[in-house]
Parts: sequence; C-alpha cells; structure tokens
Amino acid sequence: MNALPSSDAIFAALDDLRARRPLVHNITNYVAMTVSANMLLALGASPAMVHAVEEVEDFVAISDAVAVNIGTLSPPWVSAMQSAVARANALGKPWVLDPVGCGATPYRTRVAAELAGLAPSVIRANAGEVLSLAGAAQDAGKGVDSLAAAEDAVGAAETLARRTGAVVAVTGAVDYVSDGESRVAVEAGHALMPLSTALGCALSAVTAAFTAVRPPREAAIAALAVFGAAGSVAAQRCGGPGHLPAEICDALYAMDRATLARHARLAD
Amino acid sequence: MNALPSSDAIFAALDDLRARRPLVHNITNYVAMTVSANMLLALGASPAMVHAVEEVEDFVAISDAVAVNIGTLSPPWVSAMQSAVARANALGKPWVLDPVGCGATPYRTRVAAELAGLAPSVIRANAGEVLSLAGAAQDAGKGVDSLAAAEDAVGAAETLARRTGAVVAVTGAVDYVSDGESRVAVEAGHALMPLSTALGCALSAVTAAFTAVRPPREAAIAALAVFGAAGSVAAQRCGGPGHLPAEICDALYAMDRATLARHARLAD
Amino acid sequence: MNALPSSDAIFAALDDLRARRPLVHNITNYVAMTVSANMLLALGASPAMVHAVEEVEDFVAISDAVAVNIGTLSPPWVSAMQSAVARANALGKPWVLDPVGCGATPYRTRVAAELAGLAPSVIRANAGEVLSLAGAAQDAGKGVDSLAAAEDAVGAAETLARRTGAVVAVTGAVDYVSDGESRVAVEAGHALMPLSTALGCALSAVTAAFTAVRPPREAAIAALAVFGAAGSVAAQRCGGPGHLPAEICDALYAMDRATLARHARLAD
Repeated sequence: MNALPSSDAIFAALDDLRARRPLVHNITNYVAMTVSANMLLALGASPAMVHAVEEVEDFVAISDAVAVNIGTLSPPWVSAMQSAVARANALGKPWVLDPVGCGATPYRTRVAAELAGLAPSVIRANAGEVLSLAGAAQDAGKGVDSLAAAEDAVGAAETLARRTGAVVAVTGAVDYVSDGESRVAVEAGHALMPLSTALGCALSAVTAAFTAVRPPREAAIAALAVFGAAGSVAAQRCGGPGHLPAEICDALYAMDRATLARHARLAD
Repeated sequence: MNALPSSDAIFAALDDLRARRPLVHNITNYVAMTVSANMLLALGASPAMVHAVEEVEDFVAISDAVAVNIGTLSPPWVSAMQSAVARANALGKPWVLDPVGCGATPYRTRVAAELAGLAPSVIRANAGEVLSLAGAAQDAGKGVDSLAAAEDAVGAAETLARRTGAVVAVTGAVDYVSDGESRVAVEAGHALMPLSTALGCALSAVTAAFTAVRPPREAAIAALAVFGAAGSVAAQRCGGPGHLPAEICDALYAMDRATLARHARLAD
Repeated sequence: MNALPSSDAIFAALDDLRARRPLVHNITNYVAMTVSANMLLALGASPAMVHAVEEVEDFVAISDAVAVNIGTLSPPWVSAMQSAVARANALGKPWVLDPVGCGATPYRTRVAAELAGLAPSVIRANAGEVLSLAGAAQDAGKGVDSLAAAEDAVGAAETLARRTGAVVAVTGAVDYVSDGESRVAVEAGHALMPLSTALGCALSAVTAAFTAVRPPREAAIAALAVFGAAGSVAAQRCGGPGHLPAEICDALYAMDRATLARHARLAD
C-alpha cells in the first residue's frame, strides 16, 4: 500500500485538485502570505488568509484544508492556530503544519512541538526544523534557514512521523517523505529556490491543497513533485532569484503531464 | 447628471490624479499591502499603510482619501478602521470600503455591515460580497472568491447603494457601478486577473485615489476603466498569472489616452 | 580615518558579507517584509522576521545584526523593538533604525525619537524623516514619502549623528552619509526607485547586513553603493516600476567588482 506513485498518478491528483478547486484556509506568516496565495491560485486552488479567533473556526468549517505556519508567530496567532486545528480535527479536515524556525528560540520550539502534537496530516519542514522538532538536535538551523541537509534528517523525520502520526516531508536539495514506515525521495527543484523567500512556506500551502484531494502521503508526494517540477522549469528561465516566484506561478499554471514527468523523479 | 463619462473625461481624472499625487491612507489586509502600494505608486498616488489606533485619526487628517479593506481583519484593526472612518467623515474626506469575504463567516459579515453603515463614498466588492452585504444571499462566496457573476449582483448593488448612500462597484468579467439610480457597465480587464491575488483589493485602493480628485461615481468608473485597461494590456504580455502584478504596474505607469480608449468600454 | 572608501574596499565588504552570510533579524513593516527578505537573500545574507516579545531577545542573541523599521508600527511591535534593541546593545550587536514616516503623526514621531535615543549603529531615512527626527522641520514629509531633497537634510543629518552617536544615511536622488564629522555623497540608483514600494526599507535591511561585517560608517556607505548600483542596473532593464524589485534582486545576486565601480560614485 506504500508503493511509489507513478508520475501519472501524481498528475491525476493535480487534475483532481484543479477540478475541485479546494478552499485552503491559511494561517501563515506575513512574509509568505502573498506568494502563498499566488501559488495556490496558479495551482488551481482558492486561498484565504484568516487569522482572527473570532472567525477561524467558522472559516475552517467552509474550507477543504488548513495550512498552519508559525513563521511570524505571536500569542494571538498561536491561539487562532490552536482553535483552527481543533476545529479541523473535529470536522475531519486535513491540516498541514510548517514549523518555521523551530529550534531558533525556546518559544518557537515549544509552539511547534505543541502544534505537532495536535495530529497534523502532514508536517512540511526543512532539515534543521525536523531535527529540532524530533528532539534530535538543538542547533541545526540558522534562524529560519537550515544548515543541515535533508538526508541528515531522514531518520528524524521517521521518528517524528511515528510519534505524531503525521506524514513528514523534509525538503532540501532532495526531498524526503516519510510516514514512519516507508520512505520516498523526490528529486526536483533547483538550487536558486532557497534564495527566494517563503517558497518552503508556499510549498506547505500547496501541500495543504493536495490534502483536499488525496490522503496525506500521496498529497505530500504530489505537492513536492509538482512544486519541485515548477521550480525547476521556472529557474531555467531566471538569471537570478528575482523573478523566481512569478515564474513558479506560471509553471504551476501551465503544468502538464509531460513537464511533470520530465522534471520530477521519485525513488524509494 | 448621470451621463456616461467619455474616455477623455476619464483620462482627465487620471491626469488630475497624477498632478495632485493624493496621499491615500490604507487600512488593508496583509496579502494586499505590497501590491496595493505598488499600484498606487505606479498610478501616480502616494500610498501609506497605517493601522494603529494611536495614530490613524492623525493620519487621516493629512490624507486625501482612505481605503478600508477587511481581508485579514481582527478586533484591533476593526477598531482602527472605525476610528479612521469617523475622522474621515468628520473632515469630509472620501473613503472606500472593500468588504473582503463578506458572507464567509458571521464575524466578517457583521463587521462589513457595520462599516457599510458608516457612509462610505464607494463600496468595491465582488458579486458574492455584494449579494451578502445587501442581504440578498448567504452563500454566494467561496471564502474570498465569488461564485456568482457580477451580473447576478447588479440588483443587489442598487439596493445596497440606496441603503448606504455609497456608490457600489461590483467587479467580475464585466464590472458595474451603481449609485442607486443609474447603472454603468465597464468592460475591461482579463480572465487571468482573478488568478493573481489581491488585485481586487488593489483596485479598491486605486478607487480611493480617484475619490481624491472626483466625486464617488466618477471616481469608481475611472478606477474600473483605468485599472481594467491596465489589466488588459498587462495580461497580453503574460503567459500566466505570475508577472501580472508587475505588468499591471507598468501599464498603469504608462497609461495614456489612446490605450485607455482602446482597452476600456463603457455602456449604460 | 574618515577617508573615502574605494570601490575595491566596498566590494571587499560585499565579499566578506557573502562569505559570512550574516543572520539579519528584522522587525519591520508588513509592506516591506517580503521584498526585504528577498533582497537580503539575493545579497548573500540570511533574513528572519521575528517580532513577538516572547522571542525577540532570544532571536537577537543568535543574530548578527538587527533592523528595526517602524513603517506599520503599533504598541506591541514597539515593545518588541525596544526589547530587541536593548538586547542588541547588551550583546554589542549592531542595529539599524528606519524611522519610516517620522513627522507624519505625533505617535510615530515620538516612537522614532525614543528609538533614535537607544544608540542605533545607523539611522537610514529619507530627507523628510531626517529633518523631523533632528527637530529641524515638522512638515517635510508626505505620509511616508519625502517632499524634501536629501541635500536639504545634510545639516540635519550631521546634527542627528552628533546627538545620537549613530551614523546617519539620508537617501534621495543623491545619498549622504554623516557620522557627525565627515560627509560622504553616494551617487547611484535611479529615478524609478521611489515608484516601487519599500525599497528604502529594503535598503535599511541591507545596511544592517553590512553592519555585521563592517563598522557603521563603512557599512552604510557600502550598503548605499551596492544597493544603488543594483538599482541602477535593474532600472535599465525596466520599462516601468513593476519589475524593479525582482530586477534589483537579480542585480544584487550578480553584483561584481566592475559593475559596482561603474554604477556607484562616491564624493566628499
């Protein structure tokens, strides 16, 4: 049941997403909001950014999936995240956690750990964040960037997946998805991507969109493949990181079966 | 007195705006801030984003127009909106309401209705929001996107205009402006525009800029025509939604009489 | 000791910055966050946006420099700025103040003055803000844009530098750096730059990055030269302001010794 999905199966997930146009409720950081919304729209989803405790539960109820990202967290936002997540769980709606900067400060690490304990469908993070969240390291990050390679965090991702019940997607030059038992490597993307802010955050939002149409493991793999393929196509059109977000939007918008097959490779 | 403005009359409004360089005070959502500021600058206005209750009244006093947008509302921001609006009304300064996502949650709908009752000069919204705000529908929206076409909301726009005293601009594939008596249709824009986030929010800010140099009805029509023409020009240069905001800025910056006449059509 | 740095000396600072990859802790405004992060990444720094009082002191402790920008200030953010600055001072870490819109409202002017009194390494501002902060004028600004030319604020910049101990960088068509004794003029940049939002804010963040590798005066001069040269290169590729931020990122990313020498001129 944990077989490697084919490129056609991943494209079918994208097709379903475009047909369903899922409403993705984002409680995300200020830096990532605009780029996340644009990438969700280009992908074929309908984004909303809603964070007031006065309305997050009501908004979760009309949404298809929730993306929670702690990048610019503060206590009122964390309260809203907790309310939204509780409501999502009560309604059986999938939600994705992006524990940005986990390990950088005690407050951030504590909030990330609390949210990770609330049954996320998927945790999408870089290596330093996964190592920190799994308790495997205290100093693997540099603020919100990771000093560790994704390969170094695969074991921690498996531990974290088993402990939380979430599928864990750890991203880097190569990405890995673990459900605690099986492991999939996704090769896609481009070295320019870490030089454009909030692309990891946008990927987490894209992952949430896929959880509206696929179970967590398939959703995480599809998101990594589609987003990575778009990043790869986009970077080839760029002489630097400046136009990368716009080009990724265009590549997501135009993504077809052949391009996906050519630009994303999966391996056990 | 409610004659259809000519393309030359609209261009004269843009000329006046560029000469006056109005200071537009925005209390808007996090997603829309950067793109709204850039579009106001490209248009020829001077934007500011100021939301603390400690200073909004003082800032209104030095501004030429105010744009209020509830996209990422929360109680402290709503308090600031109310203070700003009260001050604008006291000083006779025009203000524009963008009731983003009205109808999506009870909190949002209540806040939108309260603000709509405070004598906005213009309400700029999509069809779902207008239907909700006019009490004509409860479920016409999908989060912040509209499921209804602008044509379906023209009657609701007229009702809303008569009830609030505001000019109502309802946007979609074709846009409509109603002052409760007359109706104008503006044909401009491009199908790619809904795939780039916050363009409706930016249009509301652009509308506020025009209220600094024209009465509400003329301002709303001019904003729809100029922004729509820029969107139409911009989309022709784009293969997807990614570069659309930047191209709209360039098209606003370069907008001339002939381009405006070619890309925006008005009808009763 | 206050000799004019050579173009080679400035490029050496950029080389050192790229090698060190300093972590820059930003407490900045909502409009500027994304563009500031992208420009820091393109420059070779590692940006983070962290504002909760629950973690700002811990984050300062792992950062190399701090950028404080009051563009969209409110009391909780001002508290965080004060905590961060106190911690930076206690740890001997450099910090840069951007007093956006100082002079526009009493609240903003008071907060800017309080922060300026807390020993910033560099104050980066436009002419209207410098005149207001130095007490030389009450009405030199138009919201957050300046009506005064940088030349008009050079005397005020010297006064402000002597009073606060900060190096003051006042930007406009020509930029000036004063440490209260010597003055340097930096000619770079392009007339399109004021038409793209938050570029001054991004420059303040870039200045903070340089303070991680050079003393304040050299850091301010290097930031103005490198950012201005990038702006000049970028604007030549643009037909309007829309693509300017992306092009500046690409120009920062590609900046080399010859381009810097060609596009930035220093004078006493």
